[in-house]
Amino acid sequence: MNKENNNLMEKIVSLCKRRGFVFPGSDIYGGLANSWDYGPLGVELKNNIKKLWWQKFVTQRDDMVGMDGAIIMNPKVWEASGHTGAGFAEMLIECKKCHQRYREDILEPKVCPACKSKEFTEPKSFNILFKTFIGPVEGDKSIVYLRGETAQAMFVNFKNILDTTRKTLPFGIAQIGKAFRNEITPGNFIFRTREFEQMEIEYFIDEPKKDSDWQKHFEYWMKQVKDWMKMIGINEKKVEDFEVPDSERAHYSKRTVDFMYEFPFGKKELYGLAYRTDFDLKNHEKFSGKDLKYRPQEGQPFWPHVVEPSFGVDRSFLAVLCEAYQEDPSTSFNGVQDKSLGASRVYLKLKPYLAPYQAAVFPLLANKPQLVQKAREVYQILKLNNQQPTTNNFNVSWDERGNIGKRYYAQDEIGTPYCVTIDFDTLQDDTVTVRDRDTAKQVRVRVQELKDFLSKRIWS
Amino acid sequence: MNKENNNLMEKIVSLCKRRGFVFPGSDIYGGLANSWDYGPLGVELKNNIKKLWWQKFVTQRDDMVGMDGAIIMNPKVWEASGHTGAGFAEMLIECKKCHQRYREDILEPKVCPACKSKEFTEPKSFNILFKTFIGPVEGDKSIVYLRGETAQAMFVNFKNILDTTRKTLPFGIAQIGKAFRNEITPGNFIFRTREFEQMEIEYFIDEPKKDSDWQKHFEYWMKQVKDWMKMIGINEKKVEDFEVPDSERAHYSKRTVDFMYEFPFGKKELYGLAYRTDFDLKNHEKFSGKDLKYRPQEGQPFWPHVVEPSFGVDRSFLAVLCEAYQEDPSTSFNGVQDKSLGASRVYLKLKPYLAPYQAAVFPLLANKPQLVQKAREVYQILKLNNQQPTTNNFNVSWDERGNIGKRYYAQDEIGTPYCVTIDFDTLQDDTVTVRDRDTAKQVRVRVQELKDFLSKRIWS
Repeated sequence: MNKENNNLMEKIVSLCKRRGFVFPGSDIYGGLANSWDYGPLGVELKNNIKKLWWQKFVTQRDDMVGMDGAIIMNPKVWEASGHTGAGFAEMLIECKKCHQRYREDILEPKVCPACKSKEFTEPKSFNILFKTFIGPVEGDKSIVYLRGETAQAMFVNFKNILDTTRKTLPFGIAQIGKAFRNEITPGNFIFRTREFEQMEIEYFIDEPKKDSDWQKHFEYWMKQVKDWMKMIGINEKKVEDFEVPDSERAHYSKRTVDFMYEFPFGKKELYGLAYRTDFDLKNHEKFSGKDLKYRPQEGQPFWPHVVEPSFGVDRSFLAVLCEAYQEDPSTSFNGVQDKSLGASRVYLKLKPYLAPYQAAVFPLLANKPQLVQKAREVYQILKLNNQQPTTNNFNVSWDERGNIGKRYYAQDEIGTPYCVTIDFDTLQDDTVTVRDRDTAKQVRVRVQELKDFLSKRIWS
Repeated sequence: MNKENNNLMEKIVSLCKRRGFVFPGSDIYGGLANSWDYGPLGVELKNNIKKLWWQKFVTQRDDMVGMDGAIIMNPKVWEASGHTGAGFAEMLIECKKCHQRYREDILEPKVCPACKSKEFTEPKSFNILFKTFIGPVEGDKSIVYLRGETAQAMFVNFKNILDTTRKTLPFGIAQIGKAFRNEITPGNFIFRTREFEQMEIEYFIDEPKKDSDWQKHFEYWMKQVKDWMKMIGINEKKVEDFEVPDSERAHYSKRTVDFMYEFPFGKKELYGLAYRTDFDLKNHEKFSGKDLKYRPQEGQPFWPHVVEPSFGVDRSFLAVLCEAYQEDPSTSFNGVQDKSLGASRVYLKLKPYLAPYQAAVFPLLANKPQLVQKAREVYQILKLNNQQPTTNNFNVSWDERGNIGKRYYAQDEIGTPYCVTIDFDTLQDDTVTVRDRDTAKQVRVRVQELKDFLSKRIWS
């Protein structure tokens, strides 16, 4: 990581904490091993990402259905999927004296950091599923696992979903939810954490007669992943499609593409696309004894094959922030450089529909009741949807603190695309100032046209 | 549970599985101790409940912010909150021979069901937090817990949220997320499960000078809870406010009201409202050594007091279904009793904005390309929002299977409020038949007015 990128990452982490996007988990207790909590702005941005994904991949399509499975599943699920085996493990050496375990490749020199002993066992396989005990007795019989991926819930529910929805191939099942991996070396802010959220699709296709039968679905989903990245504002030039070679692919996959994004700390996997063949359904049938085949109206029953696009929520969030973070040294506020705000303007160039707030409303002066009252009216118009009283038009922020320059600064930094100011002219001609986050330019807009004006720009 | 209610519960569980609302968790492996997965329709209904709650209690209010904390927190959190102690435990007796543990009150006669031994230990406290191990070494030092409630994340983040949002009292923090309790006797479908989802608010208020200072907030939140129940269609006559007596209240609470709903299996807690005093912030300050006081502009720093409304997502889901389930023996389809559909019409009288689908669109006949094409056009108009391309107007279902009576039956059973049929008249006069779920009445509506017609009814 070069110095400039190092700085960028530090600035993002600092902004996240300072403005309430992401806090260190259990912060007042000194944290907990790279766990993180999403704060008031972070949860809105994260929810907007998840909502957008669900709309694009589930509710706007006819060939997809959603589900939401339990995090704790029957342990046989993980035997069938291969997760309790060596494929989901890290090789660790153990200090013979104090029994601490380490990854050999990162332990240099070979001295135990805990007790200074130099004697270690041979590397042993360490499974990274979190285990816990269900019921009143702790013991081998009561061991269950926190799921290591959301995918298995979709295979285990395949038959129930097929029977209840009567979908025909090809069709997909989508799920958003948390997964847990007892990583030995989590890190890079929210990039690799032990508890993380996935958005996954298992797309079930016909048994391929030839390679092109599954390749065409694979190519289609490559394009869908790229469409999605564009929707959330990821620059395609920063993404490399990495064809995972045979030797590095997961045991179930015949082809995997990792979408590698240029994070400030290096090119790392943002999303993945895997052709899982019929590995999962076949194995779950074997382990459960339940028939998981698809029965076409004419023809023999068979196990559908699976193409799996997999999206990390937290990594999406981080990539979105990395793209959005902008510094503009040339721009001043209201045409006047305000020294108190520092040398350069920081703004998050978020897609307007992803931003925590789509607009902010200010009365020019907080101590003029007429301005405040009018501003509250505008705020309510923008915020509440009278046609659909249980939904908002947009999320709207209210600010009457400090001067207008500081308010712009504060909204820029959290990515609010439009700031609306109510001033004395508003009381005369019912127009407001709308100021654009990215250009810092201002225009006057009539109050009665304001909602349309913003809608067009937010959803374009 | 009387026979009629027993039947109702069986019917709901059966409908949930048959139509894809809720499946037994890990079903193909014989399940897992009362765990459940939400299927394609269930996840939509559940998401609609959560979205509505977030809108009502977070984004439409100025005095609330959201957050989303990690499930695994620093174990000191649970020491400070008292959850690792006797207050969050069940008393169990242990078989001296095979070491299985049981709740004494439900073990009759006193014979171990596992090994038939009759020798038991005295009752011992059994903590119901799920524990797991973080990092590569299993041992006392690596024990962490799955959170037993979402509430603690809001206390632990109180200071960070206060500093970043600069909110002034009173204000609230809201969170939706999973919690885990190793219950000895889970049951009643999704009512009591080991893994469940909560929607919780910690509402921070001034240090009360007299009881009426906190009571007024308590009364306000009682009303808010009731407003919410009304929004999701809970009949207030089926809800009893139970004042939890001193002896039964949690250790931190000075007043608790349980909102008891008449489930088919008895009157049980649906929601709760607790005055937690300053117990939590004070204890977290004590255990963490971090100052968690609120500093008013003028006056002494103090620990805010807390009023906590707590809503179960799964219990909301179940109560909504219990209210919505209707049988109408008198109604036939299209004026003709269709014997193949059974004696009575079953429908879910869900609030239209909560239903998995707000509308269904059918071509009268699937083998007439003109009808199918026109129906697809209407389907797209209803489904896609051209002004806001990343959002849907409504969720819309498409069905062209079987006859129209069976399609109505299928939509009634999943609570779709409006069915729109495109027939030969549509091709002439551009009107469609709109059929109402609850009355089974039909009206003709012009296609260009259809979206408004439905919007008004769905959001009213």
